[in-house]
Amino acid sequence: PPISRLLYTSSASYLYKRQRELFRTSQLICPTSGMAPGYVQTNLAILPMSYAFDFLLFCQRNPKPCPLIEVIEPGEYKPIKSAPNADIRFDVPQYRIYKNGILSKEVENISDIWRDDLVTFLFGCSFSFEEALIESGINLSHFENNKNVSMFITNIETTPAGIFSGPTVVSMRSIPRDKLVKTIQVTSRFPNVHGAPIHIGDPELIGINDISNPDFGDVNIIKEGEVPVFWACGVTPQAVAMKSKPSLMITHSPGHMFVTDIKNHEVAVI
Amino acid sequence: PPISRLLYTSSASYLYKRQRELFRTSQLICPTSGMAPGYVQTNLAILPMSYAFDFLLFCQRNPKPCPLIEVIEPGEYKPIKSAPNADIRFDVPQYRIYKNGILSKEVENISDIWRDDLVTFLFGCSFSFEEALIESGINLSHFENNKNVSMFITNIETTPAGIFSGPTVVSMRSIPRDKLVKTIQVTSRFPNVHGAPIHIGDPELIGINDISNPDFGDVNIIKEGEVPVFWACGVTPQAVAMKSKPSLMITHSPGHMFVTDIKNHEVAVI
Repeated sequence: PPISRLLYTSSASYLYKRQRELFRTSQLICPTSGMAPGYVQTNLAILPMSYAFDFLLFCQRNPKPCPLIEVIEPGEYKPIKSAPNADIRFDVPQYRIYKNGILSKEVENISDIWRDDLVTFLFGCSFSFEEALIESGINLSHFENNKNVSMFITNIETTPAGIFSGPTVVSMRSIPRDKLVKTIQVTSRFPNVHGAPIHIGDPELIGINDISNPDFGDVNIIKEGEVPVFWACGVTPQAVAMKSKPSLMITHSPGHMFVTDIKNHEVAVI
Repeated sequence: PPISRLLYTSSASYLYKRQRELFRTSQLICPTSGMAPGYVQTNLAILPMSYAFDFLLFCQRNPKPCPLIEVIEPGEYKPIKSAPNADIRFDVPQYRIYKNGILSKEVENISDIWRDDLVTFLFGCSFSFEEALIESGINLSHFENNKNVSMFITNIETTPAGIFSGPTVVSMRSIPRDKLVKTIQVTSRFPNVHGAPIHIGDPELIGINDISNPDFGDVNIIKEGEVPVFWACGVTPQAVAMKSKPSLMITHSPGHMFVTDIKNHEVAVI
């Protein structure tokens, strides 16, 4: 089979390493959903050191939207804990560069703009708990319909830190009512990848007036017998950082996550 | 009954508030073990801002010995999240002031040396999971013998961050073999207060050569049918910070913890 097909279906570790190599050399540029099954993928935020203490404090205060998998020291680009052989300047499939809060360009590596004062933040992502849900027999309709989740800006304020503040962004998944308990049990095991939901049911209670009009992602229909369930979303730290208009901020392009060497089940707390 | 007796036995919230008032005015100066049952108590470390990013990063990388309950921004002394009406300069029963890594003095408040660049770190403490163990029917012999736990410096290195590095310090509790599973289940629910053990059984495997000769705390005998179980200990971040000889560092005096408004069961992840 072609390599691209193998990448989406095999969990053999030589394959996910090969995949990172393809990202590194820009032979492969694509969203990573469904890739490297079993391995933690992360959101990316890179900020100059002058913002780093406040941003780290923001993450510490808001662990549900900002579950830190790793923070790499100023100027360092090896994620020692999560992927010691990777290079964060090359190994994300696609990057976005923001200057003063405005998207400047989308690139395949950031080696030419790397600086000694850049601090890298890697955040857990919902792919990990979605895999655990599916393994536990809970079907996720957005997968079946080949769509992205719906994401919404809520009226739930994050806890501010220094210059960083703003609303919590959530992702919504439509869950059959008889699977609600299991859904909460399964996701509670994974606080480092957003963990348990933060709201179940009536969207208006968290400031979502139209469930069929998401702020990000795709529209997803809630079927008879299903309940909308809301998780804190990794878009939150990026949105909050952007709001402060940092002189420079680098993120992954949406859906183009960093693939780590950590297995999903390694980050479970029980 | 006298107030001191009430403080140790009642969980009524007016009492633990009254207690903090007594600490504030230095009418009461005593260890807090067994006080304010049901409420989270914390270890304290206060450092100048110049050390704060590295120390926060150290805590993020070593969540088992350094489970952050709250970090208070430079110069602020109100623990908004964990005890909004408290004042961290007064409300710890007793403080230790270290200069360049050397104990300078022990005081009842730190208002006269407070500075605008001081950052306060509050760490979860084993009192919370010990209470959960006792509630679950697991007797802790050091309580029954009215002793402190034994604490040991291990050969388990923490993950360094900036100037901070050093070995993990553990606390040991002797657990009946038939209670081992329950012990792990119960403590796994509480990662924010050290959580699950990091070692079970043979002390030599983690560099402890004489279990009857602890580095800190009291000697505790392991009885027939009991197994030594080791938890990452809140002494670790203090020991690691001290090793770097910061110009100024303020901690609580051993056993004289900060009592928060958070209930132990609120910090459980499930």
